[in-house]
Amino acid sequence: MEYPSPSPHWGDGEDAGFWAFDIQLTEKNLVEYTGVTKKELDFIRSIVDPERVSTGESVLDLHSKDESFHPRRKPDVVVWPLSAVEISQILKLADAKRIPVTPWGAGTSLEGNPIPVKAGIVLDLQQMNHILELRAEDLQVRIEAGVIYKELNQHLSRFGLFFPPDPGASATIGGMVGNNASGVRTIKYGATKDFVLSMVVVLPSGEIIRVGTNAVKSSSGYDLCRLFVGSEGTLGVVTEVTLRLIGLPAEFMAAVVQFRSIREATDTVFQIMRSGLSPAALEFLDAPTVQVVNQFKKLSLEERPTLFIEFHGTSAAGLKEDLEMVKEICGENRPLRFDSGIGREERNRLWEARYGVHESIKASNPGLSPLVIDTAVPISKYSDMVEWGQKIVKEKGLQGYAFGHAGNGNLHMEIMGIPEEEVQWQKVQEAAEEIVHFALGCGGTATGEHGIGIGKRKFMKEEHGESLLLMKQIKKLVDPNGIMNPGKIFD
Amino acid sequence: MEYPSPSPHWGDGEDAGFWAFDIQLTEKNLVEYTGVTKKELDFIRSIVDPERVSTGESVLDLHSKDESFHPRRKPDVVVWPLSAVEISQILKLADAKRIPVTPWGAGTSLEGNPIPVKAGIVLDLQQMNHILELRAEDLQVRIEAGVIYKELNQHLSRFGLFFPPDPGASATIGGMVGNNASGVRTIKYGATKDFVLSMVVVLPSGEIIRVGTNAVKSSSGYDLCRLFVGSEGTLGVVTEVTLRLIGLPAEFMAAVVQFRSIREATDTVFQIMRSGLSPAALEFLDAPTVQVVNQFKKLSLEERPTLFIEFHGTSAAGLKEDLEMVKEICGENRPLRFDSGIGREERNRLWEARYGVHESIKASNPGLSPLVIDTAVPISKYSDMVEWGQKIVKEKGLQGYAFGHAGNGNLHMEIMGIPEEEVQWQKVQEAAEEIVHFALGCGGTATGEHGIGIGKRKFMKEEHGESLLLMKQIKKLVDPNGIMNPGKIFD
Repeated sequence: MEYPSPSPHWGDGEDAGFWAFDIQLTEKNLVEYTGVTKKELDFIRSIVDPERVSTGESVLDLHSKDESFHPRRKPDVVVWPLSAVEISQILKLADAKRIPVTPWGAGTSLEGNPIPVKAGIVLDLQQMNHILELRAEDLQVRIEAGVIYKELNQHLSRFGLFFPPDPGASATIGGMVGNNASGVRTIKYGATKDFVLSMVVVLPSGEIIRVGTNAVKSSSGYDLCRLFVGSEGTLGVVTEVTLRLIGLPAEFMAAVVQFRSIREATDTVFQIMRSGLSPAALEFLDAPTVQVVNQFKKLSLEERPTLFIEFHGTSAAGLKEDLEMVKEICGENRPLRFDSGIGREERNRLWEARYGVHESIKASNPGLSPLVIDTAVPISKYSDMVEWGQKIVKEKGLQGYAFGHAGNGNLHMEIMGIPEEEVQWQKVQEAAEEIVHFALGCGGTATGEHGIGIGKRKFMKEEHGESLLLMKQIKKLVDPNGIMNPGKIFD
Repeated sequence: MEYPSPSPHWGDGEDAGFWAFDIQLTEKNLVEYTGVTKKELDFIRSIVDPERVSTGESVLDLHSKDESFHPRRKPDVVVWPLSAVEISQILKLADAKRIPVTPWGAGTSLEGNPIPVKAGIVLDLQQMNHILELRAEDLQVRIEAGVIYKELNQHLSRFGLFFPPDPGASATIGGMVGNNASGVRTIKYGATKDFVLSMVVVLPSGEIIRVGTNAVKSSSGYDLCRLFVGSEGTLGVVTEVTLRLIGLPAEFMAAVVQFRSIREATDTVFQIMRSGLSPAALEFLDAPTVQVVNQFKKLSLEERPTLFIEFHGTSAAGLKEDLEMVKEICGENRPLRFDSGIGREERNRLWEARYGVHESIKASNPGLSPLVIDTAVPISKYSDMVEWGQKIVKEKGLQGYAFGHAGNGNLHMEIMGIPEEEVQWQKVQEAAEEIVHFALGCGGTATGEHGIGIGKRKFMKEEHGESLLLMKQIKKLVDPNGIMNPGKIFD
């Protein structure tokens, strides 16, 4: 694949021209960065159509926050590029001038991942939203990074195909690649990293590279594709992604199971996973979570610890056998209710409720913000982690909602508070830290799917030990001037 | 996790002691390396028990070759370390003295991956063969890198568990990690990379790091685990691996289908994959391959293009439905035979035959060596690739056997010749190159599972373009003196 060579070449004597007067500033450190100058802005407007460059307050405001509680910070300018070549030219400028650059998907992340904490340029990729090539015969699709995954799946469904990871919110594929998003179906199908075959990435130097292969397996050299997936825009800008797809399952069957105690519910999760069954979803919701979805998503479940379980397959008979096995396993934990006769409509309402948990919690607690736990542990420790979380939150007199992708050992607990009320928020933070420490102590992770962003940086050393240094060295290698999404992943 | 600090610290003034006299040689280039000196050997013997250090000719000879045709090269010394700490001390020496180090698993690779082409030290990990911790309740096992995967699976079967990737030969887990091995079951379960949760790696500097997490999903920082998997020992020595496991399937069903033409067989593969079915194996064998396994593995199949198909699941009824669907799909391609009533014994004989293909081809062609093709392409191109390969081999008047993990688009073609007969081997090489070019032209890969090793280096630039430079930069970052398995992956 040939790309036209972007020009002018920033930091390249021959083409430096207009900017030659302060080309010595290439040694300037990001810390000294004081804002995008008018000249730089004019240059950006010479690269992309001025209609796709904005410094309007409302636009800057929209790009100052994600779905988290982290403090807002406005960028200096928002740019909507249309191609890797435009992005390359902008990155060359930014690299030469030490301007922070933060790629932007849909702003739906939960850890401050796209907040431009050092201001600078936000590259909003939402206009790069084309499905470039659907190769249904290969179960592959090539798309621009700004495509919304729900829209992609709508399109794919006409061809009997789908892209399984589903974080719930209206995320872009680029955003999902950025923090290796997953969701309720990951237990069977895998996370975003398991579906990315190849990508086009613009490096901070402006170089445009293609990583990966469109063969579904490869042992050819270092797996650069996986290095960029989950790097949260700190190593470059992903502009194009080729995804592996899955045939839409011909059959599905769902069940709702309710228990007297949390431990009976979470022990059931462990026993199902241990049995060799392969559910397509295995979600846990505690009683307070059920209460808010009853209220805001019009369910009428008993307010008890609950599991949502689903199986996908080609054979209805096979799925029925699977659910029989599940019923038997549940039986050992004295469920109050085991309902497997769920029709399509009720099933859709259940999943809509599940996806609406975060929103329902917020609606139920006006004026409060949630700090979202995203720990994941080996499955045998899941019950202990949930119990530990409940204990800590109760001890601190806080309100918490526990739910999550239990089959993957992934717990979301939303602990409520007001970030501006220091004493109370300190308690919220301490509770979160205790839960993360517990997860790390079990060999788990601080973040199963939301990414490190801003809020989880403090756990990097504890989770990764000496290998954190290697991550930092790789960051330094690829982005020597530290322009890409500064303040994320690393302190 | 705390490791004792290895000593002496090579290249560290304080501890340099014995070697201080030529510490200035740290600038010495590998190219100048002339062999392990007696002093260096003595030092190695002070690190590890002298019984685990050998310069005996027969030992060196055993470590001079793998299963490929690539020229032998003896190391200077073979060391059997017992711990990461011993390896750390040896790497510190080697790094300071610019001694090549090649990690060794079982020597069963097919691309010269472990041949010590620059001599130096071979680290044979076969004595690090302990299953350290089976956490059946988490579907995880922590093992040393020298464990043979077949022995691991024997052990795991008692607990109803298994590690699915199966390259066939008696590979070690460390070797499988080295080139991201896969095999017949990868189509359903994934390759080695999909099962490695965390690892202990000794870096060329001697530093011991742990990468990854034991949670089954994570979005925490850069995916270093995936960077080391498939790096063929060029970035460090993997000493310990924690693997995710799968419950042994309760039910399996197998089928053998035979066709008039290759295209009818390979088109069937494509149609099965497109249907949404999830086979646990989908293997193709051409007529000459069937002929050699008939002869050496005591099968009595018609010598026709053949598919071996298997399904795994919890429900016999479900599997039966799956096979019915397969039968329907096959029907469109006029099979000569569709046999799905296969008992356990016959099924085991079929798989033994499939695993024995390479060996049977060699037995059938005494005096000849195979050049093994390992291309993989998007599935819709599989038929074309096989046809292209057959055409090229025929045109050049060569003997070729085509088979492979068809469901993954992975073709093995073994092209026979005598490496020492220059004119003929040139033809073999040209045929192989034409097949690889074809695969790369379809967006595929030069190697689906054997790794780059020596023989596929020439395709790296064509496959990876500008991203090859980033791979080389990462190599330089982690192994600045180029001591780790030199001459592999990169020229």
